[in-house]
Amino acid sequence: MANMITSELEGLLYGRELDSPVVKVVRALSGHGAVSTSQIARNTGLARSTVSTILADLKRSNLVVEMEARNPGPGRPAVAHSLNPEAGTCVGALLDVDEIRVIVADVAHNVVADLAMPVEREYSPTKAARVVKHAVDTLYKEHSLAYASLIGIGFAVSAPIAPDGRVMRSSALPGWQGTDFREALEPVLQKPIFADSESNCAALAEMMWGAASGSDNFVLLKLNQAVSGAVVVDGKALVGASGSAGEVGHIVVDPHGPLCRCGNRGCLELYCGAGFVAKMAADWLGRSIPVDEIVARAVQGETGFRRLLADAGEAAGRGLSMVGAMINPPLFIISGILAGAGELLLAPLRASYEKHSFVKRDDVDEAHYPVFRVGKFLDNDNCLGAAGLVLRHSSRLK
Amino acid sequence: MANMITSELEGLLYGRELDSPVVKVVRALSGHGAVSTSQIARNTGLARSTVSTILADLKRSNLVVEMEARNPGPGRPAVAHSLNPEAGTCVGALLDVDEIRVIVADVAHNVVADLAMPVEREYSPTKAARVVKHAVDTLYKEHSLAYASLIGIGFAVSAPIAPDGRVMRSSALPGWQGTDFREALEPVLQKPIFADSESNCAALAEMMWGAASGSDNFVLLKLNQAVSGAVVVDGKALVGASGSAGEVGHIVVDPHGPLCRCGNRGCLELYCGAGFVAKMAADWLGRSIPVDEIVARAVQGETGFRRLLADAGEAAGRGLSMVGAMINPPLFIISGILAGAGELLLAPLRASYEKHSFVKRDDVDEAHYPVFRVGKFLDNDNCLGAAGLVLRHSSRLK
Repeated sequence: MANMITSELEGLLYGRELDSPVVKVVRALSGHGAVSTSQIARNTGLARSTVSTILADLKRSNLVVEMEARNPGPGRPAVAHSLNPEAGTCVGALLDVDEIRVIVADVAHNVVADLAMPVEREYSPTKAARVVKHAVDTLYKEHSLAYASLIGIGFAVSAPIAPDGRVMRSSALPGWQGTDFREALEPVLQKPIFADSESNCAALAEMMWGAASGSDNFVLLKLNQAVSGAVVVDGKALVGASGSAGEVGHIVVDPHGPLCRCGNRGCLELYCGAGFVAKMAADWLGRSIPVDEIVARAVQGETGFRRLLADAGEAAGRGLSMVGAMINPPLFIISGILAGAGELLLAPLRASYEKHSFVKRDDVDEAHYPVFRVGKFLDNDNCLGAAGLVLRHSSRLK
Repeated sequence: MANMITSELEGLLYGRELDSPVVKVVRALSGHGAVSTSQIARNTGLARSTVSTILADLKRSNLVVEMEARNPGPGRPAVAHSLNPEAGTCVGALLDVDEIRVIVADVAHNVVADLAMPVEREYSPTKAARVVKHAVDTLYKEHSLAYASLIGIGFAVSAPIAPDGRVMRSSALPGWQGTDFREALEPVLQKPIFADSESNCAALAEMMWGAASGSDNFVLLKLNQAVSGAVVVDGKALVGASGSAGEVGHIVVDPHGPLCRCGNRGCLELYCGAGFVAKMAADWLGRSIPVDEIVARAVQGETGFRRLLADAGEAAGRGLSMVGAMINPPLFIISGILAGAGELLLAPLRASYEKHSFVKRDDVDEAHYPVFRVGKFLDNDNCLGAAGLVLRHSSRLK
């Protein structure tokens, strides 16, 4: 039974009739999870009555189920529609430097399983395909899921992927440059393949389930050892001609500054990354200290650690003011290990943004001034976003 | 006769059937000028046979005419289709600080008239409407055009315009902030109103007629007294939450640098604008010298002036490397008065971009490295782009 529904779902998702109203409705459900009839009408541009008729048909064939909306306003709870969780599953896989992580989600946007496997560094694409296949087989057996229910596999890759499916540059995954990602993985996995960079997947996770929910335009800044990011315009994370869109951490803020691991001088990462905070703390204490401890002790009130996080926030805010003068997104999501400090980081970040911003708070109505928000997923966002690629049907490699 | 065709064209352009194939074809012709059947099929997603049938119908009703393609390849010259130049006209108007400039173009993308009128500074929206109406009436009389043939008026405004049609900030046009642009102008002009910022219109001019022809993703940098720009993503120039998208000239490159007219310190404009070049030249010569003379004498070979333009190019290249680390467009268009120096400016700009860029030339295939090109329109691009808003049917205020 479930397999039959999956085939029908696949027929709709992967068929040719992209312009047909029923496909539009199914894609809206797949991409947005539980939504109301009005939201589907808005997303698809279809008339509300058309949407209602299609939903009734899809319910009869068991592809769609009804539930109470998650965030109903006052009054009568709104009814939400969702793809039937039994209609299909998808997989999100993170190809990290020394680890491959896999999650399984159903088409109703619920995460049902999660597995991380260490791998030897400098693994090949074929090795990656085999590890993912093995992980998926293990998880599907464990959770009594049929491989036939799997509608697609999304990959979060530590490298930029061109729209034609080739790995544009390989820094974290040596030797992968130029690899046709789909050609390398599909023969082993035998499923539709989707792929994007780690950071773009992280942005998608925040957009679908997290702090950017409901926002189609925002910039993500992740303050980890590496400072990375993503630029989302009209619901699409930019890749860029050379795959460097969103590399906010490598804006050169001081051409005479210290050398960066990327080979330039004075990159933003050197002034607001977890590495900067760790190094400053080690200089101060005379011994090394883990970054999560720095964040925790700052939260507990230790002034020196608070100052370090404020310094990082100030540098990040200056960097984001540059983003503000270029693309001026309405929303900034600040994520990564340093974002665990919350307002200790964000308050100085906002103040510094305002100081260096071309448009000041008083220049525009409040609604036109950007919002700064801590990300929801400080861990595992890439992997979740990789599953999101399948559900949103974005970055499919054909 | 012409009026009847215009009514039919307006019915198609402003009707409700946006999804109908004939409207798609008409909009492709209106937006792209003379194009082949295949190009229309590509732009609209319609089958080639469908496009052919529609074109035949439109030719019978005189809305479309046939011509030889402007850039035919070797062999048989391709046939291009265009809207009948007699089917309608549009107006582009630039609302500058002390001048209002108007051009008239036909729907086949030919500029047929041009008029600039001085206005007293700090003019009101109503005054602007009246001046434009007067200019249009004058030009239409002079060229024996009927006001009924006018399908829309586009405005290039020295201020950002929100998608809802309100002026977001007013710097060059004091008192305009919050003005509902359409509400202020439509009663006098009685035509559909389109509006975007000067820079976004300039980008549209380069995209429709100029150096970015055929490119849907690029960044424009204009090196005039002010350094301005535009960011075009998927054919759309970004506005930004506070209207500061594309303000590349106001990226703070040195927070301890000199004060900028915007109130910040060390903006990029201070290191690569025409004002910087003029000031340096004046310091050197002991007297002021016009910027166009500096550019001309650099072109003629005077070393000091060459060095000044190289300095400006170097600063601009560093600024664009930041754009490269954020949105990484495949194409940069360099425009404005300094761009008249051509390679004297562009060569150091490219070298500086490469030096500070996160992705170096050797990191990627040549096709993935950005291209730098001098703009086609170093004058009047805003006004031309304003007419382009109408032809592309973008930024219409409803």
